[in-house]
Amino acid sequence: MVLPAVMIVFGFHAIEEILKKRDIRSADNPATLYISTKTSKTERLESLARQAGLGVHHVSDRELDRLCGSDRHRGAVLRLENDPEMVKNDLQTELRKIDRQQALILLLDEITDPQNLGAILRSADQFGAELVVIPKRHSARETRTVLTASSGASAYIPIVTAPNLVQAIEPCKKAGFWIYGAHLKGARVDSADLRGKVALVLGSEGRGLRRLVAERCDTLVRIPACGQVDSFNVSVAAGILMYEVRRQQGFWR
Amino acid sequence: MVLPAVMIVFGFHAIEEILKKRDIRSADNPATLYISTKTSKTERLESLARQAGLGVHHVSDRELDRLCGSDRHRGAVLRLENDPEMVKNDLQTELRKIDRQQALILLLDEITDPQNLGAILRSADQFGAELVVIPKRHSARETRTVLTASSGASAYIPIVTAPNLVQAIEPCKKAGFWIYGAHLKGARVDSADLRGKVALVLGSEGRGLRRLVAERCDTLVRIPACGQVDSFNVSVAAGILMYEVRRQQGFWR
Repeated sequence: MVLPAVMIVFGFHAIEEILKKRDIRSADNPATLYISTKTSKTERLESLARQAGLGVHHVSDRELDRLCGSDRHRGAVLRLENDPEMVKNDLQTELRKIDRQQALILLLDEITDPQNLGAILRSADQFGAELVVIPKRHSARETRTVLTASSGASAYIPIVTAPNLVQAIEPCKKAGFWIYGAHLKGARVDSADLRGKVALVLGSEGRGLRRLVAERCDTLVRIPACGQVDSFNVSVAAGILMYEVRRQQGFWR
Repeated sequence: MVLPAVMIVFGFHAIEEILKKRDIRSADNPATLYISTKTSKTERLESLARQAGLGVHHVSDRELDRLCGSDRHRGAVLRLENDPEMVKNDLQTELRKIDRQQALILLLDEITDPQNLGAILRSADQFGAELVVIPKRHSARETRTVLTASSGASAYIPIVTAPNLVQAIEPCKKAGFWIYGAHLKGARVDSADLRGKVALVLGSEGRGLRRLVAERCDTLVRIPACGQVDSFNVSVAAGILMYEVRRQQGFWR
């Protein structure tokens, strides 16, 4: 359950968020900043990287393109040898750390679109989700896009990757979580009781929850809606469901 | 307040949704389907188009690329000479049509990213928003991406384009709407009273509401959150706010 050991991050905001973290410098996580263009923003990143004791290399634009497999870097790329948050997490270990009685974790089944996954991680950060379980990914290129799309939020949420979501549900039940699957045939989420330890399971856009996953949920819930076309964007649906859970849990009081 | 007079739509789902509409055939809206590849999906679109009395042309892949300025069409492109929904709408006319006492309209200020706008239109369709006011766009290319990203939802929602959102707020007030601006310094949305005629105003991601727009709102509201990074994706925020409005309005009872 680990993500690729080398991670390439671009986007000023994503890099800045990671550099501002305290444990960026630990020996386990060597990181290097590559800069091709001198602007006030890249200078700020360079300054943060030097404060954290990281190596900084000035390279050509072409070298940077090659390094991150894209020309969208706008002059700065951060390379993490071991992603400090994403590696070495294990589902049961992470579940044991959750001591809140009003807890919220997310289990994402086959949601692999990087933009959607990134937006979901941003919402998970905003709603203080205690854990996010994402599909095990095979491509480092996709994973780095997720990090970028999450605007750095992924650095703050415990994330565990699971090769098979069906197997991830049982440990959550054992840890006291009630499993709510998002499903068009479910009960209205605003009428469900979402207090206590809540695990939200979301499936891929278009296909929804796989049958095997839906069968293992304790309750199926849906966002009440009246649309003419299929459904919500999956990251929007995730945001609405997380909001409703935290609202009912009295999270902000 | 009109969008470009010619609109190119691709994506099977978007095309299908538009073809299934009853008024696609009206004389004002000549439409033509272009197909380069014969698959069960393009055959289905061809059949729908013929039922609606539209012209169907079989062309080369390269011709289709040229037609829609992209190679992402997967073999089918719909060309609308006048978009049936988006053209000729006018804000005051649309406002007059709204007779519900528990109404929801959306005003989007400077939200131009096609993916976000598309996702917002999908949510607006799901939550039965009575009207969406979007920024007047200069690029037909962007507009067609919005239609595609909305999975066809844009065909079902009254949409008005406004060259300047500041000027769009006053007619909404006169039509009896209370104007709620989404703002980080606003009141918690779950504590606000969102019943009655509600106009939600959302600003661009990153910059938020412009000062001139915020000053014209009756109330500023925010989604309670505890994130480490900036904020929600704007389409997620829009979805959550629309959900909360419809929940308080008892829309689903």
